[in-house]
Amino acid sequence: MPNPIEFYFDFSSPYAYFAAQQIDRLAGGFEREVVWKPMLLGVALKETGAVPPVKVPLKGDYVKNDWARLARFQDLKWTMPDPFPIATVAAARAYYWIEGQDAAKARAFAWDCFLTFFGEGQDISSKETVAAIAAKQGFAEDEVLAALEDDAVKQRLKDETAWAVEKGVFGSPFIIVDGEGFWGADRLWMVKRWLKSGGW
Amino acid sequence: MPNPIEFYFDFSSPYAYFAAQQIDRLAGGFEREVVWKPMLLGVALKETGAVPPVKVPLKGDYVKNDWARLARFQDLKWTMPDPFPIATVAAARAYYWIEGQDAAKARAFAWDCFLTFFGEGQDISSKETVAAIAAKQGFAEDEVLAALEDDAVKQRLKDETAWAVEKGVFGSPFIIVDGEGFWGADRLWMVKRWLKSGGW
Repeated sequence: MPNPIEFYFDFSSPYAYFAAQQIDRLAGGFEREVVWKPMLLGVALKETGAVPPVKVPLKGDYVKNDWARLARFQDLKWTMPDPFPIATVAAARAYYWIEGQDAAKARAFAWDCFLTFFGEGQDISSKETVAAIAAKQGFAEDEVLAALEDDAVKQRLKDETAWAVEKGVFGSPFIIVDGEGFWGADRLWMVKRWLKSGGW
Repeated sequence: MPNPIEFYFDFSSPYAYFAAQQIDRLAGGFEREVVWKPMLLGVALKETGAVPPVKVPLKGDYVKNDWARLARFQDLKWTMPDPFPIATVAAARAYYWIEGQDAAKARAFAWDCFLTFFGEGQDISSKETVAAIAAKQGFAEDEVLAALEDDAVKQRLKDETAWAVEKGVFGSPFIIVDGEGFWGADRLWMVKRWLKSGGW
């Protein structure tokens, strides 16, 4: 079996939303699995000193327009969330807790988080909102809320984030194919070529 | 006649080199002209507070690998220059001075600057090197050196850079099609779709 493709992202990253819509189908075309790896981008940004693009003069206006036109292009529901960006620690913890029980449900939960946040424009930072989204996959809300405070779950997200940064992940989305990194939704074409040819 | 496509770049930008190889042919497919607009990216970066990517932890290693693989992909000569990035004020001033006399020669000069810097890895920051590159287009080196000190030429570059920032240019390359901005060599596909459809 070839290595799975690693898909690193922060739930508060619009470009991750755009890539998330496509990555599984893209990889499936080459019979490759994708492992979704939510992380806390803020930790990586501390490493690089970078600022979320929406807060950068000039770039902030650019990306807002870009997200809207990408959504129209990909026929994907889009509402510019406010507040934005948000803390995604609850969503990311819940993801790993769900994934430990059912990988398919974790994927569905993650996509639902994206849709709720970027499609509906609804803040998903609170534990209660995350629990309500997880409930749609059949998990009891009080169990989700307990899991969000579980030390092992907390540690898992810390570890995943630290490991991502060790692998060189500095932005979202960031895709790793057999050790080769690709930053940004813009690079799905290159991921595809890389999968097709085995690299160049 | 439709508006020309504006192609903003800094001569010290590898992604501009990759886009420069393609932009004229891309636009030509839609019978559109391209106006090349060298600028001083440092002025825009002061506006945004951004740091050249090569100097950012994690991202620095990523982009060096990315430039090399893009060069292989585009079959374009590549040598990682050292020093890098460099001051490009002489090259940009020379560009506008040449363009005032002969637009085709200005284009050839610009491409030669890119090839000398990123293809050969040769520092092009000095006036003497820029004059030598301009000489290949038939300009006397002493006239180029004089032009680089000409107040009108200096002002032109200042103005072009200030106008670019006013239009929202915060990175290199940055392409404007009928008022719509596209940042990065990664977005040539979108420029193409925009030209094809008139936007969406």
